[in-house]
Amino acid sequence: MSLTLEKIRAAQARIAPYTVKTPLLRLAALDDFFGCRVWAKAECMQITGAFKLRGAFNKVLQLSPEELSRGVVAASSGNHGRGLSYAAKALGIPVTIVIPYTAPKIKVDNILALGAEVTQCSVSERFEVAARIAREKGAVTVPPFNDEEIMAGQGTVALEILEQAPGIEKIVVPVSGGGLIGGIATGVKALRSEVEVWGAEPAAAPRYSVSLKEGKPTKVTVEKSVADALVANTPGDVCFPYVAKNTDGFAAVTDEAILRAHKKLLFEGKLLAEFSSAIGLGGVLEGKIPVRPDENVCFVISGGSIAPEQLDRLKDVD
Amino acid sequence: MSLTLEKIRAAQARIAPYTVKTPLLRLAALDDFFGCRVWAKAECMQITGAFKLRGAFNKVLQLSPEELSRGVVAASSGNHGRGLSYAAKALGIPVTIVIPYTAPKIKVDNILALGAEVTQCSVSERFEVAARIAREKGAVTVPPFNDEEIMAGQGTVALEILEQAPGIEKIVVPVSGGGLIGGIATGVKALRSEVEVWGAEPAAAPRYSVSLKEGKPTKVTVEKSVADALVANTPGDVCFPYVAKNTDGFAAVTDEAILRAHKKLLFEGKLLAEFSSAIGLGGVLEGKIPVRPDENVCFVISGGSIAPEQLDRLKDVD
Repeated sequence: MSLTLEKIRAAQARIAPYTVKTPLLRLAALDDFFGCRVWAKAECMQITGAFKLRGAFNKVLQLSPEELSRGVVAASSGNHGRGLSYAAKALGIPVTIVIPYTAPKIKVDNILALGAEVTQCSVSERFEVAARIAREKGAVTVPPFNDEEIMAGQGTVALEILEQAPGIEKIVVPVSGGGLIGGIATGVKALRSEVEVWGAEPAAAPRYSVSLKEGKPTKVTVEKSVADALVANTPGDVCFPYVAKNTDGFAAVTDEAILRAHKKLLFEGKLLAEFSSAIGLGGVLEGKIPVRPDENVCFVISGGSIAPEQLDRLKDVD
Repeated sequence: MSLTLEKIRAAQARIAPYTVKTPLLRLAALDDFFGCRVWAKAECMQITGAFKLRGAFNKVLQLSPEELSRGVVAASSGNHGRGLSYAAKALGIPVTIVIPYTAPKIKVDNILALGAEVTQCSVSERFEVAARIAREKGAVTVPPFNDEEIMAGQGTVALEILEQAPGIEKIVVPVSGGGLIGGIATGVKALRSEVEVWGAEPAAAPRYSVSLKEGKPTKVTVEKSVADALVANTPGDVCFPYVAKNTDGFAAVTDEAILRAHKKLLFEGKLLAEFSSAIGLGGVLEGKIPVRPDENVCFVISGGSIAPEQLDRLKDVD
């Protein structure tokens, strides 16, 4: 376990020329509904529409010239692939992205638009396929979450939040494999140990809720969910110890709560997230993440890749 | 013409305890599409979802105790009524709102939810009906735009923009009667005369484009438009001279351009506006507002009151 605050600070300096310091928005219109003082870290406004760009840049910017010349490859449910494709294009290196068939078409299109080579396969095969391509091309595999430099890049979100609103008392983070929350929680606890960090994952894929109880990374069955960016069936083994040590609680959130929260965030908060990224607010709605009316709670809105037709899902929601 | 920078500054101090300093967002994801460096002043994130609250508070906070006890009345296509209703509730005074039948149901519901009394009538009758109610109740009429104290309140938007991003070179403002642009343009030109101020109004109701050519407030025919918050058939006679003196250009924007701009603002910028509030971006799309790739252009996103079913309009848009 060598991820430290210093590594996150180094990542911040490294990626600053290539990424946006996203706004931290005070969304008072949501306070009554969610029962706390609502803040949103708008990573949906990050370049490429998601936080994933941070980790991708932090990793790629540390490759040798020879590694860069052979290019990079990644398995990704979409946002990581888009972030890595953008980074590769910015640095002028080859990139191949392996995407599950289940990913929304808009995410695939966004990656193709950045000039990446794309290979599609089933969710379960994606890491094997990426490894094979890496062998064949001599390319460097850039993992979506299970890597300390990726986590260091994602952890820069925490440095920005604490600087933008020092009064934040709780940070709620959408969770899949654990790269984002691992980086954020490590940064937060090193800087301000009294600030709570909570994870929110789909009830359809509760890999951290189960694994933290078991005390080790444990594979779960992944059911279908609107949270299509949060599909890991097990915590990353690199991420897990950081998450276990530095978080204060976890919620496994239903699709119904995710959609209700998303609709409120959009029509009252005026912010467009992808469904996965409303999961923290959903966890509060279900009472699985405790909040108080005067508490300053920051919800990391991790991405905003959503297609117009997906919004039809909100029509049957209160 | 007694509206001055000092009156706008006084308004800013007066309304500060009751209103939000809304974020000024740098939306780099929109730059290529619109051909400039895009900034959005997110008045859709103002309390009650629109800038209208600023003018309403500035007016009501200057009433005498006796006037306050008799209450206030307004004719409004929605957002002004909602802002005034919120202000009245905050100050504990009676309020009656006259709303055209054409206003979206969501706007009416939002006003009723604030405890206001509501009367509905046709668009053309709304000022007469409000005047009658004012006479009957002895209430003070709070006009939606045609008043220097209302303009002073709306002008506080300009002070915030120039403080939040001193590099802004052009400000584009949605226009109906002229209260918002009148206040903004007066503030901008007093502080930084080199910053351009442009108005965007519906091609379906080009009251300023026509009136500026005529040299006086001129009534136009108002056709149906998606810009349902911009329905004035003539410039306010109080607003007109400030607008004529302090603006650099006007665009009359088609519904098609408004909807294309709105969709881009939502799905790439991640910000939910009401259709009316995307009109400035629409004017740029149509080439009616000139911009340069390196120019910092601030679009005032004046409001965000939109119902879920209205988003269906975006489905047939590129």
